[in-house]
Amino acid sequence: MTLDQIRAGGKAALARALAELERFPDAPATVALLDRAYAEPRAHVVGMTGPPGVGKSTLMNALIGAWRTSGRTVGCIAVDPSSRRSGGALLGDRTRLTTDPEDQGIFVRSMAARDRLGGLAGLTVSAMVLMRALFDVVLIETVGVGQSETDVVGVADTVLFCVQPGSGDSLQFMKAGIAEIPHVVVVTKADMGAAAVRARADVLGALGLGGGGDHDGWESPVLMVSSARREGVEGLVSAIDGHAAWLGEAGRLAAARHAQAEAWLEEAVRERYGREGVRRAGDLSLGLGESPFARLSVLSASLGFDSKG
Amino acid sequence: MTLDQIRAGGKAALARALAELERFPDAPATVALLDRAYAEPRAHVVGMTGPPGVGKSTLMNALIGAWRTSGRTVGCIAVDPSSRRSGGALLGDRTRLTTDPEDQGIFVRSMAARDRLGGLAGLTVSAMVLMRALFDVVLIETVGVGQSETDVVGVADTVLFCVQPGSGDSLQFMKAGIAEIPHVVVVTKADMGAAAVRARADVLGALGLGGGGDHDGWESPVLMVSSARREGVEGLVSAIDGHAAWLGEAGRLAAARHAQAEAWLEEAVRERYGREGVRRAGDLSLGLGESPFARLSVLSASLGFDSKG
Repeated sequence: MTLDQIRAGGKAALARALAELERFPDAPATVALLDRAYAEPRAHVVGMTGPPGVGKSTLMNALIGAWRTSGRTVGCIAVDPSSRRSGGALLGDRTRLTTDPEDQGIFVRSMAARDRLGGLAGLTVSAMVLMRALFDVVLIETVGVGQSETDVVGVADTVLFCVQPGSGDSLQFMKAGIAEIPHVVVVTKADMGAAAVRARADVLGALGLGGGGDHDGWESPVLMVSSARREGVEGLVSAIDGHAAWLGEAGRLAAARHAQAEAWLEEAVRERYGREGVRRAGDLSLGLGESPFARLSVLSASLGFDSKG
Repeated sequence: MTLDQIRAGGKAALARALAELERFPDAPATVALLDRAYAEPRAHVVGMTGPPGVGKSTLMNALIGAWRTSGRTVGCIAVDPSSRRSGGALLGDRTRLTTDPEDQGIFVRSMAARDRLGGLAGLTVSAMVLMRALFDVVLIETVGVGQSETDVVGVADTVLFCVQPGSGDSLQFMKAGIAEIPHVVVVTKADMGAAAVRARADVLGALGLGGGGDHDGWESPVLMVSSARREGVEGLVSAIDGHAAWLGEAGRLAAARHAQAEAWLEEAVRERYGREGVRRAGDLSLGLGESPFARLSVLSASLGFDSKG
């Protein structure tokens, strides 16, 4: 399917294209489609992350509502990190988006993060690139504290981090410098009053410790939003637009996307070669008491490359 | 260095052996050493994980003290997950162990988790196998909520998960089924009274939702420990011993370690082949506006394997 056919065919065509992209990631038609989409970016890509239970689905609904009201089209990718072992137990929880199925201006897709290697670095990037050529905003949601923030940085222009009042763990992670510094922090459930105000102060403290200078001069705003009362959503939209405008200056957006593409390429080469190595190695089962170290040593030699690198 | 030389040389010899293992992972002497160590397991391997700030270092000190008092030798590996980007900001924080440097029965080593691929699956496993042949207990500490639990499952016989009172995020993760079900859960800071009791009830609820049946009939105990007051530490030691005894029945330990070794082997093949692929691909930088998809397609063809797998 070509980009023009997808544009003409609406959401049904996009769903079919994403299915093809997933099934035939290396087909010439897929590569041609992604090349074209890559050359025609339209959307600003927003990554939203934070621990489960923090109110991300509700916030997504509010954000999508605000964008649609202002006439912007939205493509949405919800990444389910639990699929590696538990078989996607979270997915039911992740699609609690109350969007109008008749509205051609909003498209939602859930994707499983298959494993660490395939994860966000794999299909999510392809889906993002395709949707970036079709919508005004692409919103990618991941759940997590730690690694997943690092991952979403690889696909999003603006990274939102959501915390709720009283969630010390998330702040500890940010303080410890494990997570990337997000571009915008949202304290959800602002209707919790004093606890929300304290959470905001904690985040500001954590950002100070983490060194906001990482972002080339961008000072990450810390906003309080009550999705339930629809308070603060407009401010969040403005903050995202503000970061988009800042990225638009001095070639920052182009540089960031170029770096993302290069990182994706290296990861993709690594993943494919790794998969090919496992395929070529064949039977990797061990005999009772057989040492994996000796076996790896034999395999490295027989697979025909210098393993000392 | 041989295993006998390390045994004779004490902690200094072990430190040298670990340095060699890190520098020459594929040298025949390294492989021979690991083969021998793999064939002579002695220690029970305990993995401890949980978010930063939860009191893991203090708990480790208390646990190590209890084991040493009962005459058991302890090898300790602290894995620093922050090294991927922040350059190991946490390491200073991680080695707050107050062990006696003159005591030959306790050895502590910090290791950086270099990246997702090398992470726990790489050197940590080699170090664990070597130390498993030398001590009565090996304790591996990782920090994290989410992925790192999954990782520590790959190297430990018994997985401890630490939560502190009022840390809703960690519980949300466990509930959501992202984390593996730990074998033993510790509510730290039990001196916090009612909050600690409530945390314990929350964990029990979360374990119920997550389905404790994952563990082949093992019911994960949820303990309250006050490291500061040294309360509950003996109970924790007993719980770990209880799990070790349970693993000893019906060939469970051997089966679990065999599965770990096979998973490590596959991961190691994947990692080496991936690294080799990146090396062979050479310059992966992209021109301005150049699509990574087209480039990957060309690379896949030229690297000489069928990439459709």
